[in-house]
Amino acid sequence: MKIYLNSKWYDEDVKISATDRGFMYGEGIYESLRTYNGSLFAPLKHFERFKRSAQLLGINFKMNFEEFKSILLEGIKDEKEDCTIRVMLTTGNGKEPLFILYIMKLQAPSEDLYNYGVDVGISKIRKIDESALPNLLKTTSHANLMIAKREKESFYEVLMLNSRGYVAEGIMSNIFLVENNVLVTPSIETGILDGITREIVIDLAKSLEIQVAERLVNVDELFNCSEAFLTRTSAGIIPVRKIENRTLFGGEPGSITQILMENFKPYIFHRADLW
Amino acid sequence: MKIYLNSKWYDEDVKISATDRGFMYGEGIYESLRTYNGSLFAPLKHFERFKRSAQLLGINFKMNFEEFKSILLEGIKDEKEDCTIRVMLTTGNGKEPLFILYIMKLQAPSEDLYNYGVDVGISKIRKIDESALPNLLKTTSHANLMIAKREKESFYEVLMLNSRGYVAEGIMSNIFLVENNVLVTPSIETGILDGITREIVIDLAKSLEIQVAERLVNVDELFNCSEAFLTRTSAGIIPVRKIENRTLFGGEPGSITQILMENFKPYIFHRADLW
Amino acid sequence: MKIYLNSKWYDEDVKISATDRGFMYGEGIYESLRTYNGSLFAPLKHFERFKRSAQLLGINFKMNFEEFKSILLEGIKDEKEDCTIRVMLTTGNGKEPLFILYIMKLQAPSEDLYNYGVDVGISKIRKIDESALPNLLKTTSHANLMIAKREKESFYEVLMLNSRGYVAEGIMSNIFLVENNVLVTPSIETGILDGITREIVIDLAKSLEIQVAERLVNVDELFNCSEAFLTRTSAGIIPVRKIENRTLFGGEPGSITQILMENFKPYIFHRADLW
Amino acid sequence: MKIYLNSKWYDEDVKISATDRGFMYGEGIYESLRTYNGSLFAPLKHFERFKRSAQLLGINFKMNFEEFKSILLEGIKDEKEDCTIRVMLTTGNGKEPLFILYIMKLQAPSEDLYNYGVDVGISKIRKIDESALPNLLKTTSHANLMIAKREKESFYEVLMLNSRGYVAEGIMSNIFLVENNVLVTPSIETGILDGITREIVIDLAKSLEIQVAERLVNVDELFNCSEAFLTRTSAGIIPVRKIENRTLFGGEPGSITQILMENFKPYIFHRADLW
Repeated sequence: MKIYLNSKWYDEDVKISATDRGFMYGEGIYESLRTYNGSLFAPLKHFERFKRSAQLLGINFKMNFEEFKSILLEGIKDEKEDCTIRVMLTTGNGKEPLFILYIMKLQAPSEDLYNYGVDVGISKIRKIDESALPNLLKTTSHANLMIAKREKESFYEVLMLNSRGYVAEGIMSNIFLVENNVLVTPSIETGILDGITREIVIDLAKSLEIQVAERLVNVDELFNCSEAFLTRTSAGIIPVRKIENRTLFGGEPGSITQILMENFKPYIFHRADLW
Repeated sequence: MKIYLNSKWYDEDVKISATDRGFMYGEGIYESLRTYNGSLFAPLKHFERFKRSAQLLGINFKMNFEEFKSILLEGIKDEKEDCTIRVMLTTGNGKEPLFILYIMKLQAPSEDLYNYGVDVGISKIRKIDESALPNLLKTTSHANLMIAKREKESFYEVLMLNSRGYVAEGIMSNIFLVENNVLVTPSIETGILDGITREIVIDLAKSLEIQVAERLVNVDELFNCSEAFLTRTSAGIIPVRKIENRTLFGGEPGSITQILMENFKPYIFHRADLW
Repeated sequence: MKIYLNSKWYDEDVKISATDRGFMYGEGIYESLRTYNGSLFAPLKHFERFKRSAQLLGINFKMNFEEFKSILLEGIKDEKEDCTIRVMLTTGNGKEPLFILYIMKLQAPSEDLYNYGVDVGISKIRKIDESALPNLLKTTSHANLMIAKREKESFYEVLMLNSRGYVAEGIMSNIFLVENNVLVTPSIETGILDGITREIVIDLAKSLEIQVAERLVNVDELFNCSEAFLTRTSAGIIPVRKIENRTLFGGEPGSITQILMENFKPYIFHRADLW
Repeated sequence: MKIYLNSKWYDEDVKISATDRGFMYGEGIYESLRTYNGSLFAPLKHFERFKRSAQLLGINFKMNFEEFKSILLEGIKDEKEDCTIRVMLTTGNGKEPLFILYIMKLQAPSEDLYNYGVDVGISKIRKIDESALPNLLKTTSHANLMIAKREKESFYEVLMLNSRGYVAEGIMSNIFLVENNVLVTPSIETGILDGITREIVIDLAKSLEIQVAERLVNVDELFNCSEAFLTRTSAGIIPVRKIENRTLFGGEPGSITQILMENFKPYIFHRADLW
């Protein structure tokens, strides 16, 4: 791991003040980026969400995109393999915010899992309602997610419902279903984060003339759909093999999932706005 | 400020690892205690809540009450004035939890405010529903409270409603109303923390033969009650002079508030279980 | 009272089958219209809402606007004074729907009340959420309203909150507030009926260059606003003198309320689409 | 059908006033009873719930149990086959309530269905929350149920979720699941009616040393349970063969369902308090 703090890079574990408000009160925001073949993926989109989160939480973030990008590029320039970059901003000492950046091993599932698919549970812990926390704010106050994850530790990912019981999103990914050849995914109004890979997959599906429905999704659809997959910046598209006790596929992922998986990398490399 | 970390006391600002999960993911719990005349107030109750929070968030906390208390006593023994003690536990590096303790200036309002009363706003930000986060868990993941506070910075305290629109609690205090000589306060089922001073004030009121109702409280009661006050460990009982535009008293706090304020200290000093 | 049933008019009380599903199961919809100076007010708007309700509840309603209007005109032609007309449709015997129409005394407050203002309570009973019953469906299944009304019988009208605790509407009227010279009223998204007089008052206000905000309204705004009034088809604009214990005006209604009241009748008579 | 109205019995369709408030505003309550071998089943329990509903809706119901029972006994004395009895009370003309009683063909599924099982759907329409309508009030204001039923007409029964997305009850029945040999059913706190047959089945299961859990039930449990059945006064225990696309059994109902079905009639005949 490599960490950037106060304009310097540290190879080993660096320290921050024990009175940092990000530590004492969870007053922080973050974004997770990744590289593909050593190139930064969708840095502008991540930067814009990072700024939006800072504004929603009321942290003064003055860096412009050029500075932001140049720090990231500096950080990844010697990385031999693709990596995950966590960018974080806290309220610091209450006067001066703290900007910190972590470069780490890519948080993607093993290649096997892309063929075999992952197992997904359904949490009894609900997502925080947007009346309490804006769903577009990516905060480090993750106690809610920690509890949901602990409840279902044997699963690769845990789906959370919103406060009214509609399917929302996983702890670290968005969910897509296939029903009658339509690609179905919870709408932003469900109270979810507008995942970047989620958006790209919707665009990709439309470009392939697959019909897409963004709407409220009922829990029973998880048991009546024909295919399901997760999307996540660090991992792209991950097929879902099982949801709780229900097996969705034995051999290969369903055909729409496969088409999207095959086309995902060509599509993103082809889109100039993502690099 | 004095900080206890890894069995040592530090007079100045100490540092913790930038990869501590309490910092990166808000995976932490805490309690705030205070002293009265140099004596620790209700340490056992706070210890039990601390343990309960650790369990709810799934952090392994092995310390027993004797150890816990002896560290606190050591920390306060040279303090000349009453102080606030923040005890905190994070998931640390994910394997070993981090226990840290801060001794700071007492977080109480000035003496004037006890006579004059404080102004209270009503937040548009709702409390996190207990379907998402147990209300008895005192976590450091405070982004929700930060947003509520920022929205109403000119007020001493900000009241939050629960997800269904019932009066819940302030950011750092519990709320009591007086209606027709009955002391009314939101019930635990509203989704609030079982504040220690809240419980003590209920006991005190009953001992004074004041009728107490713990129940769902509607917002209009804030505008139709005759008296209101806040309770908070570090401050005891604080009379409320105004709620939004409504002035509750001009000269002196209402009679039931005054009776409880006058009797509060004698009552707690008299109760052996609180020391 | 005059009743239209099965193509006939009855002067006295007529009877319907005790097995009518509107009677046994509340499977019915309705609209309430009124006349001004003997002319039907906004019949097309009411007809369209009536059809919409029929569709939402799944009752087959084949009548076109011409037929609908001609029955109403026939019913009111001998009325000496302005009247209220209740049009109702039930699922009948389950095969054939039942259409019934009542012509009754105008359900408006006395002239005094327009000067003096009315008293309004806040119900503890919440409105039915639109996840259970579409808010645009005006059904005869009124048990919910009956309970809310009974709870606050001394008030002219009772305001209901939606399931999340935002101000929604009265049992028989919509609510408007004035705050900082802005006319504020709950948005349709709050889960309310799109009252016809509500819409007209919004149009009127805009024509008078009064700023209008349709949005979520918090309960505390009922206690912090400077003026309030109700709108209702059968009564137009009714000033609110008191909300629970809070008196909004002693002498005359506030200036924006007065301006709207004075201009209401000229405005509606001037609008050709309402007749 | 036979109808009792104003102290008289009518063989054919009788009529009620078109201004009855039960007809105009759904201001009514009801209970559905049945006979077993010509004997009234649980009349006292039904009478008590009927009185409770009257009180919750605020209708003055003066009849005592003896009168109530004697009218029912008179009504069924010449019935050759078991029948369903619907007892209903409306607010009448607003001064005098209207009591009416219908004796009709037993509303039970055919014998085949007890072996074959029934198909059950899951409604998108949610149950009315108890903040809007007490769940223990059995009102004739059924528009909500009508919409839920219409949405899923091909199913024998439609399950409704409560406002927060937990499994509540069917339109006319309660739901039980078997999970790991435990009988699971939504708790009353979910916001459901305390069905009489539901209670009896819980008692029966306990008497057979089957473990019973009354609690919040998540939708995914409908897809992960091993058995499911409905309970309903007029039908007893009805095995569920399919829930949406999921088939629960092909040949015979699961073993716990069968044990309860076999023991149901002996158990109720044996319980003196039910007759």
